[in-house]
Amino acid sequence: MTRFPRLAAKSEIEEGVALAPRFDAQGLVTCVTTDAASGDLLMVAHMNEEALAKTIETGEAWYWSRSRQALWHKGDTSGQIQSVVEMRVDCDQDAIWLKVNVAGDGGFCHTGRRSCFYRVQPTGDGPRLRPLLMAEDAGGGT
Amino acid sequence: MTRFPRLAAKSEIEEGVALAPRFDAQGLVTCVTTDAASGDLLMVAHMNEEALAKTIETGEAWYWSRSRQALWHKGDTSGQIQSVVEMRVDCDQDAIWLKVNVAGDGGFCHTGRRSCFYRVQPTGDGPRLRPLLMAEDAGGGT
Repeated sequence: MTRFPRLAAKSEIEEGVALAPRFDAQGLVTCVTTDAASGDLLMVAHMNEEALAKTIETGEAWYWSRSRQALWHKGDTSGQIQSVVEMRVDCDQDAIWLKVNVAGDGGFCHTGRRSCFYRVQPTGDGPRLRPLLMAEDAGGGT
Repeated sequence: MTRFPRLAAKSEIEEGVALAPRFDAQGLVTCVTTDAASGDLLMVAHMNEEALAKTIETGEAWYWSRSRQALWHKGDTSGQIQSVVEMRVDCDQDAIWLKVNVAGDGGFCHTGRRSCFYRVQPTGDGPRLRPLLMAEDAGGGT
């Protein structure tokens, strides 16, 4: 398995060309996954060192499931495999951005929607969510 | 300050209309911020209960700075205030998505770039980053 270097110098972390993820106390970095075609935000998940290494090696998205405490090859059971079109890392290397194409029926969220972000919270109001209509769901659903 | 309900039932968390964020052990939820116009991913940050409440109340983005352990009104010193165009929450309510317009010079990252995600990690390769050319930087920079 690919092992990533640990860098101490801020300049190397921010400006260097070595991928040196800053895993948190749980050994995780945050991963933001967007649809490569539409740009829509699909999900936010986490990766441990092995998930990140497997994603780079295979070109498919692997995560660490915090609820199941297990490595998670997204789409293994649903067929909704995520092919990585581009991977980026942020300035302080504690977050990953995946732009993906989704196989299978194109679905994404375990609730059946195309994106996990299907409810809007208006600002200036109390905490009252507005669920998106199906047609507003990112990508229009399937 | 707005206080958010704590919900136990998965059905209420996933399908309800109450914003009931599932703060982690550090009292934080992840926040993904994108440019409302271009859709580009700008940053990944965190919010505690107060930051989330202030964002809703003011319509401007407030975060919790983990490095400074302080409430953080983005743009207070730089002028790069983020006006929230839309806020969404994900299925299990542990992540927030802000679509924002950025004031000031439109900059975003503390390194001076428009997005924090300015380096690409190729898949199938070793851990070697490719910095984006300035013209590829999300939004083209300023």
